[in-house]
Amino acid sequence: MKKLLDHINFPSDLRQLNLDELPKLAKELREFIINIVATKEGHLGASLGVVELTLALHYVFNTPEDLLVWDVGHQAYGHKILTGRKDIFHTNRQFGGISGFPKRDESEYDAFGVGHSSTSISAALGMAIASKLKGEDKHHIAVIGDASIASGMAFEGLNHAGVTDANLLVILNDNAIGIDPSVGALKQYLTNVKKGKEKQDNIFEALNFDYSGPIDGHDLPTLLSELERLKTVKGPKFLHVITTKGKGLKQAEDDQVKYHAPGKFDAQTGEVHAKSTIKQAPKFQDVFGHALVELAKENKMIVGITPAMPTGSSLKFMMEEIPERAFDVGIAEQHAVTLAAGMATQGLIPFCNIYSTFLQRAYDQVIHDVALQKLPVIFCLDRAGLVGEDGATHHGVFDLSYLRCIPNLILFAPRNEIELRNIMYTAQLGLDQPIAIRYPRGRGSILDWKRPFSKIEIGKGELLKEGSSLAVLSIGIVSETVTRALKNVNDIDAIAHYDMRFVKPLDEALLHQIFAKYVTIFTIEDGTISGGFGSAILEFASKYNYQNTIEVIGIPDVFVEHGSKEQLQAHLNIDTLSVSTILNATLRLLNL
Amino acid sequence: MKKLLDHINFPSDLRQLNLDELPKLAKELREFIINIVATKEGHLGASLGVVELTLALHYVFNTPEDLLVWDVGHQAYGHKILTGRKDIFHTNRQFGGISGFPKRDESEYDAFGVGHSSTSISAALGMAIASKLKGEDKHHIAVIGDASIASGMAFEGLNHAGVTDANLLVILNDNAIGIDPSVGALKQYLTNVKKGKEKQDNIFEALNFDYSGPIDGHDLPTLLSELERLKTVKGPKFLHVITTKGKGLKQAEDDQVKYHAPGKFDAQTGEVHAKSTIKQAPKFQDVFGHALVELAKENKMIVGITPAMPTGSSLKFMMEEIPERAFDVGIAEQHAVTLAAGMATQGLIPFCNIYSTFLQRAYDQVIHDVALQKLPVIFCLDRAGLVGEDGATHHGVFDLSYLRCIPNLILFAPRNEIELRNIMYTAQLGLDQPIAIRYPRGRGSILDWKRPFSKIEIGKGELLKEGSSLAVLSIGIVSETVTRALKNVNDIDAIAHYDMRFVKPLDEALLHQIFAKYVTIFTIEDGTISGGFGSAILEFASKYNYQNTIEVIGIPDVFVEHGSKEQLQAHLNIDTLSVSTILNATLRLLNL
Repeated sequence: MKKLLDHINFPSDLRQLNLDELPKLAKELREFIINIVATKEGHLGASLGVVELTLALHYVFNTPEDLLVWDVGHQAYGHKILTGRKDIFHTNRQFGGISGFPKRDESEYDAFGVGHSSTSISAALGMAIASKLKGEDKHHIAVIGDASIASGMAFEGLNHAGVTDANLLVILNDNAIGIDPSVGALKQYLTNVKKGKEKQDNIFEALNFDYSGPIDGHDLPTLLSELERLKTVKGPKFLHVITTKGKGLKQAEDDQVKYHAPGKFDAQTGEVHAKSTIKQAPKFQDVFGHALVELAKENKMIVGITPAMPTGSSLKFMMEEIPERAFDVGIAEQHAVTLAAGMATQGLIPFCNIYSTFLQRAYDQVIHDVALQKLPVIFCLDRAGLVGEDGATHHGVFDLSYLRCIPNLILFAPRNEIELRNIMYTAQLGLDQPIAIRYPRGRGSILDWKRPFSKIEIGKGELLKEGSSLAVLSIGIVSETVTRALKNVNDIDAIAHYDMRFVKPLDEALLHQIFAKYVTIFTIEDGTISGGFGSAILEFASKYNYQNTIEVIGIPDVFVEHGSKEQLQAHLNIDTLSVSTILNATLRLLNL
Repeated sequence: MKKLLDHINFPSDLRQLNLDELPKLAKELREFIINIVATKEGHLGASLGVVELTLALHYVFNTPEDLLVWDVGHQAYGHKILTGRKDIFHTNRQFGGISGFPKRDESEYDAFGVGHSSTSISAALGMAIASKLKGEDKHHIAVIGDASIASGMAFEGLNHAGVTDANLLVILNDNAIGIDPSVGALKQYLTNVKKGKEKQDNIFEALNFDYSGPIDGHDLPTLLSELERLKTVKGPKFLHVITTKGKGLKQAEDDQVKYHAPGKFDAQTGEVHAKSTIKQAPKFQDVFGHALVELAKENKMIVGITPAMPTGSSLKFMMEEIPERAFDVGIAEQHAVTLAAGMATQGLIPFCNIYSTFLQRAYDQVIHDVALQKLPVIFCLDRAGLVGEDGATHHGVFDLSYLRCIPNLILFAPRNEIELRNIMYTAQLGLDQPIAIRYPRGRGSILDWKRPFSKIEIGKGELLKEGSSLAVLSIGIVSETVTRALKNVNDIDAIAHYDMRFVKPLDEALLHQIFAKYVTIFTIEDGTISGGFGSAILEFASKYNYQNTIEVIGIPDVFVEHGSKEQLQAHLNIDTLSVSTILNATLRLLNL
């Protein structure tokens, strides 16, 4: 049967269709998304939920002249397919392929690059003000979910927009879930609105928006007529749309958390492919999650905090077992950090788990509310280093640099699961200052990882391997890379290897030994070189007037795109092969 | 006449008074504040506005057992005087004296250290949750202004608190002004509430708070009875209190912006002492403010943005002259940055002026919304480096480190007013990437500063002085310090001096010349050493295998307390005298 979608490459094609053809196209678009994500992986549920909304927006508005900003962007697959990227959509999130998120340099239809939440209202408002100043008659639309709109930044955007006459339409895509179910008082309020319990003096009307809705986001005629109507309304407008995440795939509707990004699945049945039964080392996030429960059972002062990532961080284990001490605060990293600080003043021991890239959202709170007051908050930074397919917006490659300059803060990177467990154990024994523990996305390397806890001495690095001629200093899981790389070097005996473990405080005693013994020193890290771990070693050398040759290996001063972690590591010359190649070249150069 | 205040050193003394004595004490407390701030300087208006509220809180609640968090803390002078610091209040904000803000290690009555806005709800909620878990029956109170509550972080705190049963009282101190008048839709809404226009379905009730008010914050009987009543209400409570900033000093009530921190004034008449008539070099902020107006008159694409600092940044000049292109977005740094990014996508040229210390609040937005998309936003970071009396929460000493690791970002520090003007001129000519221009609080050094604009070549440093034996590399106004210091060295001909100007991109061509010519190189900056400018030079040397001796001078890895800029510079050995001493010692060491 002939497909409508076959003839649609751009919204201009879409606008040639009759209204009554749109439901058929919606069905085809859903199937297209499901078929590709089933084999290529990616974010499924969010895009399925906005198929009708996506069609309606591009049908009613004159994109790309009218400017459409998708918040976060997990839901923009349909948008990508309808805006010139249908034929390359199968490259989604792959190295060299299209990005999993809207991206300005990928398409003129991607008005604003996204990835982190709650930026869309501010960005679209900026565009709307610009259009007005330039005398251009355009529409500016921000599509934001109910989890994202609860973040403070979105409120700031609403608060400003409400006192402008900007031609801004904020569409709340209310499906009551982000990656995990939405939380917070605003979410409860929105639920009441949907139930008709809240009518008067709507919270968005209080902020000067022209509010309409809630309407059914899967009802195309209603969507189309309401969007047409809103085109004629002046000033800031707010449309409340109710959708179902995962709409059109039963399993995805029924288990919205699992089908947010389900991995490979059967496009026909919807069943997620069974995981390999080969015993694998655990994910670092699960090591965190299980260790926290284990520790919290013994130590009643421990609390756990996540800003909207109970599943991704595995704090869900504690939320299930000890719910009264585990808190999902929603997409509110700033609040999460200062909440932890407040708790710490009263003697609680907060484990505040935030992805490395999202801690950027709470940078001031780490400095001002935690470190300045020397409060012993334990930051667990998941997804540190390269994260792979999520790409430039999500790599946790700046943390060593932006945290290292903060006084009073301990900065530790475990090289494996056991070290993660032990530093968590150590931290809850009672520190008199905060600590940030950064660990990667994905799996560790140790099958037998659940060993008894043992204490780590703060500020102590570790000799992993003796050597005669040059020293490699590494940090975190890069230490494992180096260990593997050393197996491929021509003269393994020449090379000593140290896992420094603490980026701060540096193990100066150990460094003095190293600098006294080895003329040539390599540092290797999975973070940016500018201001990072290697830079800390250079500062040490300068401080003590060492004249050793120091080679700093890490991520250069560029944003790293998406691809598998392995591809990206190879691309950046920090994979096992590159490290052994570099070391072999050095051995030759030094005639070793 | 005998004063009540003479006998009050702690809240326990206060609680011995009869209710009818409190108005007299309020009057005395106001006089005490006025008399000391008149001669010692400090923040006046905010504390005068909450005299009755301060008395009522300490009278009704059992501080320090009950936990009281002041948002920002400008308003906490009365609190400090009543909690053991009356006799040292004259040392307020001075080197070695008490802090101008609540500070945990200064008093057990300071439940949480503050300085930046909108942290109080999160912190107090953390305390309230802790008390509940510990089985302690305490009250937890956050006092927050109407400007601060409009910041996203405060919303995040409210949103979480509303779904807890925490014993939290949020008191909105609504005086319709922060440092400058409050802005935004929420402010309009609060004004309507005060006028009785909004009754039902209050926005705070929508967030599940038990709302009461608005009440007159200068009416002690009402305050006391309402606070007593609220002690018995369970769960999150919200009290809306109307106050007048500057209350009790006519001039301060009439000109609330000027009397926020008026400098020295006559305690009797309230008149601010006339400024010296000696012609002085301008404040950097005014150079920015005037240059922006000058440029914006010629270039219609220029817009100006400030998050709540029109007076402090001098964006007010543009707001007065070109109001349609100058935006005060309230205390919303995150929104300010992404708004600017949105504007930049449409070809506007946004000058986004944020104090260095407050840009920490928008760190993720700088990375994710601006730099990653390479949008040519022009960040003007006022109050960079040491700010003086505002102390640890306000020094802008981390910016070089946290910005230097961001790809695509140009990072420039002008050494004087002319350089600031010229880089602003250069930036608006059209860059294809963002730039951060960081400049200090206070005055420059050039009387004849308003010279014709000239273009600065991006990435070019400058030789300020030739020398034979060693080179000093400096940045920003520290270059002026070095120039002065060189006049005191024993062999001025030995020392070359370069203003590198751009921390990023580094002038590598110039650095190669310097490293080839000088064995010994000093770097000097007014930011933290960890990851800062000197660290960038070390990275350059490592990258190109230079073996020169590099001495890095800057701020060590500690939080710097308050005091005059001069005292702090001397304390940290980055003042003129220290620099010349260091250089002389080096010359001796090198036998020069």
